Amino acid sequence: MKKSALAIHGGAGTILRSKMTSELENEYRHGLQTALAAGWRILDGGGTSLNAVEAAVVELENFALFNAGKGAVFTHDAKIEMDASIMDGKARNAGAVAFVKNVKNPIKLARLVMEKTEHFLLSGDGSNEFARQINVEFADDDYFFTDFRYQQLIEARREHKVKLDHTTDEPKLIEAETSEGEKTADKISASKPQLGTVGAVACDFWGNLAAATSTGGMTNKQFGRIGDTPIIGAGTYADNQTCAVSCTGHGEFFMLTAAAYDVAARMKYKKLNLIEAASETIEHLREINGEGGLIAVDSSGNIALPFNSEGMYRGFMSSGGEMTIEIYR
Amino acid sequence: MKKSALAIHGGAGTILRSKMTSELENEYRHGLQTALAAGWRILDGGGTSLNAVEAAVVELENFALFNAGKGAVFTHDAKIEMDASIMDGKARNAGAVAFVKNVKNPIKLARLVMEKTEHFLLSGDGSNEFARQINVEFADDDYFFTDFRYQQLIEARREHKVKLDHTTDEPKLIEAETSEGEKTADKISASKPQLGTVGAVACDFWGNLAAATSTGGMTNKQFGRIGDTPIIGAGTYADNQTCAVSCTGHGEFFMLTAAAYDVAARMKYKKLNLIEAASETIEHLREINGEGGLIAVDSSGNIALPFNSEGMYRGFMSSGGEMTIEIYR
Repeated sequence: MKKSALAIHGGAGTILRSKMTSELENEYRHGLQTALAAGWRILDGGGTSLNAVEAAVVELENFALFNAGKGAVFTHDAKIEMDASIMDGKARNAGAVAFVKNVKNPIKLARLVMEKTEHFLLSGDGSNEFARQINVEFADDDYFFTDFRYQQLIEARREHKVKLDHTTDEPKLIEAETSEGEKTADKISASKPQLGTVGAVACDFWGNLAAATSTGGMTNKQFGRIGDTPIIGAGTYADNQTCAVSCTGHGEFFMLTAAAYDVAARMKYKKLNLIEAASETIEHLREINGEGGLIAVDSSGNIALPFNSEGMYRGFMSSGGEMTIEIYR
Repeated sequence: MKKSALAIHGGAGTILRSKMTSELENEYRHGLQTALAAGWRILDGGGTSLNAVEAAVVELENFALFNAGKGAVFTHDAKIEMDASIMDGKARNAGAVAFVKNVKNPIKLARLVMEKTEHFLLSGDGSNEFARQINVEFADDDYFFTDFRYQQLIEARREHKVKLDHTTDEPKLIEAETSEGEKTADKISASKPQLGTVGAVACDFWGNLAAATSTGGMTNKQFGRIGDTPIIGAGTYADNQTCAVSCTGHGEFFMLTAAAYDVAARMKYKKLNLIEAASETIEHLREINGEGGLIAVDSSGNIALPFNSEGMYRGFMSSGGEMTIEIYR
């Protein structure tokens, strides 16, 4: 009999205690707890890790304070466009969507991509067409509208920059020049860590692993930027032979280092254990100035939750243990 | 003084000698030779690996027989939508585009994403908007129209399947069901190897590495499917410490195994040399029934070109060597 384990996250980055009221902190804790409980109920009842990570992420998507599903941030055009991915470590199958609109739970759509198509990643209008054909639950714009996010967009537009959720850092700006040498009106702006992304990893009773990640992207994002969340190997990875991983942070660095797969590669090829491998991946990110964290489990039910940022909204639970929710270091 | 090296590919898969006339074979060889010469001219003149892979891929994109740029296949809606990515192994920076339309050379746009933005991957309408703002060269639909590709689309539509270029294998079909249990009219079909994708990898005089990959995707593709080509770590990867890699084949398997990064991981963590690492990555693909190949170079100018398919359009050249073009095993 194996040890079951579940870990979840709601984003990593600069979370200042000075800006956190005890009321708000309680809200975050409640959101994390609800998601952890939903996933654990499945594992504890003998369900699969795949069902557990999906259930946990659905709860995180439904919780308005995280940047996924209901709480997703607005694009430059005041739209909500979401990315999600899921991977089954037993079947080594995966599904992901990028730029889906009005889909209540993008993680469910990602799972349908995995199960109903031979593709891994569907994007844009195509992924929405697939969502319609496959008949997932849609929600109207009002469902996704949160005043808090809209104010973030207004502010970001005023500042002409891509605003990242939950961080106090100023994004660097890179100016795009036309071939005439003129500065374009809309600057292509950058991105200190991508926060508020949610994810879950699980090991079930049979030692099968699964991982899932979901995000609303960046406030005021333009040019169809895709980050690490819908990329298998970067934001999400699962393989029974090694580990299940869900990442959160400055997406481009996780893409650059194939961070989710890198944890597995360090286990397979360097023969590290889960804790060592996950720590090394995050340490390497720090060396190249990439900020963020990840959650990971192996098939023995070990859990790793390393991050190099000020905080990471996170929770975990394993057989015989207690439900733990943490925010700061 | 380091040894310079350049390798290129024009896709891997089932290339039947019985269907190849000597005239057609000469055309392919000519296309590969032109691209190889364009890249080599840069390396030989003391230019950078980054300029060399870009120049080689531009030639491959301009050559109508490969499925990239001018020769790109048609989507279900008779559109041309292209993906490309490039990575600089010295700076460890990357750029990629997915679903760009009417951009004459997507690889040039990918390089601009790398150099002018802090993002790695721009997609869809957003990437086209970026292309307009950054003022790249556009070409009208007539430029991309090839009768050969249009006939492939007509045939694929008639067969209601996603047709893959250059392969004689029948794609498997997966049927999408609506929640009412009805079969959707448009089947979500699958994908034996993705062929005709082009790529280049190079090591320059200073031992700096670069990789580039470009594709038109699948004939009759729907639902915004993104394959491995624009995914850093899957289709393309470069790091001076290990290797530069460009992949071609059944994209989903290259995404599943983070194939391009996997070669680097086997070198870093397992301490394999380039040839061993590249061979193991392709051998692992074969074990999980993934068809395709890759080209790779390291900073000593070694070249690997493993593939597990019937053939791979390829060419290579290194300091003191001869220009070599090959198609079959």
